[in-house]
Amino acid sequence: MLEVKTPAEVLAMIPKEFRPLGETETVSYTEAAGRVLAEDIIAEEYVPDFDRSTVDGYACRAADTFGCSDAIPAILELKGEVLMGQDADFSLSRDACAYVPTGGAIPRGADCAVMIEYTEDYGDGTVGILKPGAPGMNLIFRGDDVYPGKPILKAGRVLTSQDVGALAAVGKTAVSVSRRVKVGILSTGDELVPPDETPGPGRVRDVNTPLLTAMLRDFGAEPVGYGIVADDEALLRVKLRQAAGECDAVILSGGSSVGVKDAACRIIEEMGELLLHGIAVKPGKPAILGKAGAKPLIGLPGHPVAACFVTQLFVLPLLGRLMGRTQEDLTVTAELTESVGANHGREQITACRLRREGGRLLAAPIRSKAGLITQLAGADGYFLIKRDCEGLPKGAQIQVYPY
Amino acid sequence: MLEVKTPAEVLAMIPKEFRPLGETETVSYTEAAGRVLAEDIIAEEYVPDFDRSTVDGYACRAADTFGCSDAIPAILELKGEVLMGQDADFSLSRDACAYVPTGGAIPRGADCAVMIEYTEDYGDGTVGILKPGAPGMNLIFRGDDVYPGKPILKAGRVLTSQDVGALAAVGKTAVSVSRRVKVGILSTGDELVPPDETPGPGRVRDVNTPLLTAMLRDFGAEPVGYGIVADDEALLRVKLRQAAGECDAVILSGGSSVGVKDAACRIIEEMGELLLHGIAVKPGKPAILGKAGAKPLIGLPGHPVAACFVTQLFVLPLLGRLMGRTQEDLTVTAELTESVGANHGREQITACRLRREGGRLLAAPIRSKAGLITQLAGADGYFLIKRDCEGLPKGAQIQVYPY
Repeated sequence: MLEVKTPAEVLAMIPKEFRPLGETETVSYTEAAGRVLAEDIIAEEYVPDFDRSTVDGYACRAADTFGCSDAIPAILELKGEVLMGQDADFSLSRDACAYVPTGGAIPRGADCAVMIEYTEDYGDGTVGILKPGAPGMNLIFRGDDVYPGKPILKAGRVLTSQDVGALAAVGKTAVSVSRRVKVGILSTGDELVPPDETPGPGRVRDVNTPLLTAMLRDFGAEPVGYGIVADDEALLRVKLRQAAGECDAVILSGGSSVGVKDAACRIIEEMGELLLHGIAVKPGKPAILGKAGAKPLIGLPGHPVAACFVTQLFVLPLLGRLMGRTQEDLTVTAELTESVGANHGREQITACRLRREGGRLLAAPIRSKAGLITQLAGADGYFLIKRDCEGLPKGAQIQVYPY
Repeated sequence: MLEVKTPAEVLAMIPKEFRPLGETETVSYTEAAGRVLAEDIIAEEYVPDFDRSTVDGYACRAADTFGCSDAIPAILELKGEVLMGQDADFSLSRDACAYVPTGGAIPRGADCAVMIEYTEDYGDGTVGILKPGAPGMNLIFRGDDVYPGKPILKAGRVLTSQDVGALAAVGKTAVSVSRRVKVGILSTGDELVPPDETPGPGRVRDVNTPLLTAMLRDFGAEPVGYGIVADDEALLRVKLRQAAGECDAVILSGGSSVGVKDAACRIIEEMGELLLHGIAVKPGKPAILGKAGAKPLIGLPGHPVAACFVTQLFVLPLLGRLMGRTQEDLTVTAELTESVGANHGREQITACRLRREGGRLLAAPIRSKAGLITQLAGADGYFLIKRDCEGLPKGAQIQVYPY
């Protein structure tokens, strides 16, 4: 008989029992945001590839300007103008300068740029410098930002829009990313009807299929729907085997009756190994985790709120593991607007709404008896209360996992 | 001459100068995640539509079980079994019970459900109840979760995966969302080459087009690329007018030379009205905001880091306004790993990396002279230092805007 495990024990189990799929694909950098990077990105070029000015002004040798002032300008010979996007194809000797735009190349011989505000063009081929320069002033040197061999991004990172910009900058226009993990989704239950049907007596709509589909898609996985399966062991076996054959992982949700839960466990044991039957968390206890070969087979509670929490808690980290994702989710610190009780002998998850008020972030716990829609709709995130904690007072600082 | 405005002044200007487009489209609830809801969602049905049990056990009248115990069970007549997904088409009289699965319908006459653990089936058509029930115990009544007229979601919200679940639950399979705002993106600069080309002398790759495209797409807008435009006023005028004609907003970035900035301002004034020329923030000062009719025309700094910050700071809120988005971005509280100086007479934006260490969230500011790629790649967010603050010490608690 498998023991019920705590959320921490379940999370610790994931890296031991499952390995990254190790399958990658090459995508254009413009399509890479949100994907898990599968290679370390190392620069192969200098960025910039030339010395640049960071100001509009005059490039010159700093030493020629030492000691100058408004009263006694340094008079330099104007040798020319660097055009934007052009090479500076001349060099500066002593007491000479050249006009450079912001981002323009610096002629050889120059070691600083003086802002145009501190100069005066006398119109006779000379320019007065009113404030002394210093070597390196207002310049970016070749490779200051990036040079060949410089690490840019690490494998395992979920690429942001900003990373896409960085990839563009170094000319890395094709990147290797982890293949999206393909996840089969089955909802079981004789009471379920598709959301576009009106439920008859004793029936309810299947919420878990669209909920999990949206959550997985948002996470960068590829959900594959296998529809609603009746509470029938033979049928469940056929569907589970089909999904496991076609996907990298399978999530079965529902089967609120004891019989279906037991059937799911039996089928998983036939197909491979049952790793876990029950997580000590409320809501969400009746979760199942097994594997067929390297493929995770996951059983979630039928109640959508519990299914959602368990997915956040361990299914997404597990799918992240399969995709080689190394990134952690962030939490936001918020202040509880009212006290929340907890004394269940297991960790408790509570959904909340977040709002900002006078610089403070407030978390209003969502309470409801039935808690189906009201716990999901309009919720901004959730927080955990530890097993050994009897509740949290109003005003407590909590860590909220935002949706 | 327009004054330079503070970030707060710019944000305050947005709702005054721009209005929601008010254009909506109907999408399937399965495609609604990430979209801005354009209608209030009000329930039209009861969820659940029948009284349900929350446990596997026996439905009965609580009064018949008062005073019972392990030693003296209440003996009830077993009237039948409710099947999952079926109506409970019988009613219970006094001293009777019926088996119900979790989520199953409750027969008329019953007012509680006793968990199977506290019962004993004697196999002779009677069941012993070992623990007294109470009216309402382990039941969800019709409409407990949702009833006709109950507000579910408010217009202006960016729909989450959880909201999609809630829409499924109430059978709202088609929803009205704001049309994605179409935003033209132009990069100007004679020095720019497309990212897939190797820059020649004096040239650099166009980072802003892919960066802004990714940021806008992630925000739920529809970016439209107009490519790289040379520093030429006539050409810029043609392209800007074309983009403004075809899109809801236009972002022009670059034009680091003073001439192009002035040209952009002149063109915007010809097309409509210049609202702002410069934001008191570092980096990012040379930002332009204007409008042609109701359409915003935005000029961003050419430096990608500055362009990124200004986009976060006011372009995304402005696009959110056009889409009727009412939601605020969240910040995370983190602890600075080292001191950061600031004394520029304007707000300073600094990118940072986030990591968790022993329960604390640490923010490591990213320093770099050139700061192009190194400020973008691998950054997890950014934070602001107020204008009147001379810097932040190591260990300071800061609010980070995560990417």
